Amino acid sequence: MWQQPTSLFTDHYELTMLQASLHSGAAHRPSVFEAFARRLPEGRRYGVLAGTGRILEGLKNFHFDDEQLRFLSDTKVVDATTIKYLENFAFSGNIHGYAEGEIYFPYSPVMILESTFAEACVLETFILSALNHDSAIASAASRMIAAAGARPCIEMGSRRTHEESAVAAARAAIIAGFDSTSNLEAGHRYGLKTVGTAAHSFTLLHDSERAAFEAQVASMGVGTALLVDTYDVEAGVRTAVQVAGPELGAVRLDSGDLVEQARWVRTLLDDLGNENTRIMVTSDLDEYAIAALGSAPVDSYGVGTSLVTGSGHPTASMVYKLVSRRDDSGNFVDVAKAAKNKVSVGGRKYAVRRLNERNRATEELIGVGELPAPDANDRPLLNTFVTNGELDTDFIGAGAVRRAAQRHTDSIQEMPSSSRRLQRGEPVIPTRFIDSF
Amino acid sequence: MWQQPTSLFTDHYELTMLQASLHSGAAHRPSVFEAFARRLPEGRRYGVLAGTGRILEGLKNFHFDDEQLRFLSDTKVVDATTIKYLENFAFSGNIHGYAEGEIYFPYSPVMILESTFAEACVLETFILSALNHDSAIASAASRMIAAAGARPCIEMGSRRTHEESAVAAARAAIIAGFDSTSNLEAGHRYGLKTVGTAAHSFTLLHDSERAAFEAQVASMGVGTALLVDTYDVEAGVRTAVQVAGPELGAVRLDSGDLVEQARWVRTLLDDLGNENTRIMVTSDLDEYAIAALGSAPVDSYGVGTSLVTGSGHPTASMVYKLVSRRDDSGNFVDVAKAAKNKVSVGGRKYAVRRLNERNRATEELIGVGELPAPDANDRPLLNTFVTNGELDTDFIGAGAVRRAAQRHTDSIQEMPSSSRRLQRGEPVIPTRFIDSF
Repeated sequence: MWQQPTSLFTDHYELTMLQASLHSGAAHRPSVFEAFARRLPEGRRYGVLAGTGRILEGLKNFHFDDEQLRFLSDTKVVDATTIKYLENFAFSGNIHGYAEGEIYFPYSPVMILESTFAEACVLETFILSALNHDSAIASAASRMIAAAGARPCIEMGSRRTHEESAVAAARAAIIAGFDSTSNLEAGHRYGLKTVGTAAHSFTLLHDSERAAFEAQVASMGVGTALLVDTYDVEAGVRTAVQVAGPELGAVRLDSGDLVEQARWVRTLLDDLGNENTRIMVTSDLDEYAIAALGSAPVDSYGVGTSLVTGSGHPTASMVYKLVSRRDDSGNFVDVAKAAKNKVSVGGRKYAVRRLNERNRATEELIGVGELPAPDANDRPLLNTFVTNGELDTDFIGAGAVRRAAQRHTDSIQEMPSSSRRLQRGEPVIPTRFIDSF
Repeated sequence: MWQQPTSLFTDHYELTMLQASLHSGAAHRPSVFEAFARRLPEGRRYGVLAGTGRILEGLKNFHFDDEQLRFLSDTKVVDATTIKYLENFAFSGNIHGYAEGEIYFPYSPVMILESTFAEACVLETFILSALNHDSAIASAASRMIAAAGARPCIEMGSRRTHEESAVAAARAAIIAGFDSTSNLEAGHRYGLKTVGTAAHSFTLLHDSERAAFEAQVASMGVGTALLVDTYDVEAGVRTAVQVAGPELGAVRLDSGDLVEQARWVRTLLDDLGNENTRIMVTSDLDEYAIAALGSAPVDSYGVGTSLVTGSGHPTASMVYKLVSRRDDSGNFVDVAKAAKNKVSVGGRKYAVRRLNERNRATEELIGVGELPAPDANDRPLLNTFVTNGELDTDFIGAGAVRRAAQRHTDSIQEMPSSSRRLQRGEPVIPTRFIDSF
């Protein structure tokens, strides 16, 4: 996936902390770090975890080659002892966490690292970047899927975000239930289905709308989707049907009042004998616009800006905290910052989702230091991704994306139906700590 | 910069349009495409252009190797004729545009491509991704710099955004006036100054705050910045001064009421004889929080989440439109979509910034088809980046970032002082088309 080392996707202070802790000797203390979100974005009822597979893929390339070491040495980011440590850097600990596609709530321990302080510290920035970005997109995408019901959603926001974020956003959208993406690199890397037909420029390039439609149909067949709103929509639809005939695949509407337009375009298509021609809409949709189109005769939604920017919440506010570490007498000590406005809970966490007799989720149970006492219907939430530095390859690549999408579908099924409401509200199930506060 | 081809950072439909236009022959029509924003984010008074250098760097690797072609062929994205065209793809046209770091307004033609339809079409997604992301960050960053006045701002948002967006965000922040970044890869790629010291985990790792401070000072010297709010801030400051002495470089505050805290921490530091120890604040700052800290005795601002997410506007809403193309009789025809709610102006654009006798900007003048009639104080805004496929290397690499930062400083100087107001308002100068509407 990554062809270059991922090791410099890292904040400067991770390496200065490494240097200082190598100096004090504390660098080698066995430690437990935990990634979690203190809260969901305001009014959201659940979050969707994504990014895990990308982290594990990036971990394979998280090493410091000569070029990276020369940079760190030339710019005096760290001293010679630290350079020497980084020369041999390879994560040798354990990584546990929620499956990608899983739903999470405040304080869900979505990723847990067990390693020396040094190893977990150096990985912090990269882990948070992937979790915060990808989970923000997946969380927004899942709400759009809820709003769309049975109609497919297509991810097409690449142009609205950084070119590499676009690839990750496409991947996260598919995990949360999108049907396909416009992003070719995402198709290439993760085996995702890609789709697309034509833009307004294609129509404007030709001497007339008719000439453009003829060119598209001649090249791509009558099953293609024709964009009918470059000039006049009604004339566009009539021309599309004349050119492609009754087997025209779809028309795309990209501007104007989509609810009203979809209605009369549907009637017009039916009157022209094109009952099987679908209507795709694509103009600045978000979950609310999708919901508003629920009663309109629309067949699919293309979603761009709002999806790739997390629909108002472009980052998931995950943090990564040291929660436990060994002292020199060999005992693990739970640790947490004391600041008043930022609650953290020290200690290694365990998590299950408690279900009722109808297999509906009722609580997110988090055990501190040990698993919550089991209940017949508990579903364990922690998986082991890495054991002593050895990666379980089930969690990376194209297969991992498919499994994550299935995990998401199953987890949504398990949620109370109120999870599908778009209105602002509390998390749909509460988080409860066991043996803590 | 990019070690792999950038050619698949592309929407599927760019290549299906290519295929259909190769089929109709229109692919080879000489064309003019233009990138611009129809509006600024609501209430913003100006935008800051960024991404140009990254586009030009990416253009060098925008080719289709065997692996990309095999993907496109295996997945049937395009037909054999199109694959053959892409085998030899290399942009051979011209690219003009606003300098990176330049201020822009609605309809400013920030990038103009002159080439065949085919060549400009294939580049669309990649160009928009870079412009939309990087300009969103630079535009937010510039407002933070205005709010901070003479105090330095440090970019530290990497963990809140995709790992590659983080690198581009650091670059954009520096262009808009930030002093430095925490992102090591950005330092590596673009020669940017990186900074950082320690997080709460470093304190929690050690047996006491004192032990942590001693470790940091022993390794990094007394000039370092100590994070004093892991437990009790007052005790933290006292311990920091005891450990590092009068030459302690800085203390960092990352939580609580920063205005009030900065005041008494300053008094405490002064009372302890540490008049030269600086105060750095870093807790979820945006331009408004920075402005609110204006009267507090703060020496520098570390900005994260808000910066890398564009402070409420994570994308710049740039579009990329075909504005003119040749027909078969050899004449250029201006073109524009007719949709009511999306105004576009056909025709090749030229742009100058009109200045008054005191060299203050008064208007963004855009000529359609020709340069606006010159005025002594006009400053031309279009540069030529690429000529017949040949890149002007002044616009890429570390040197380009430095020049872009200078360009931004100069352009801000030229703006009416109202540009520095944070309140919502209209664009600080109007955009006027010449020989058009």
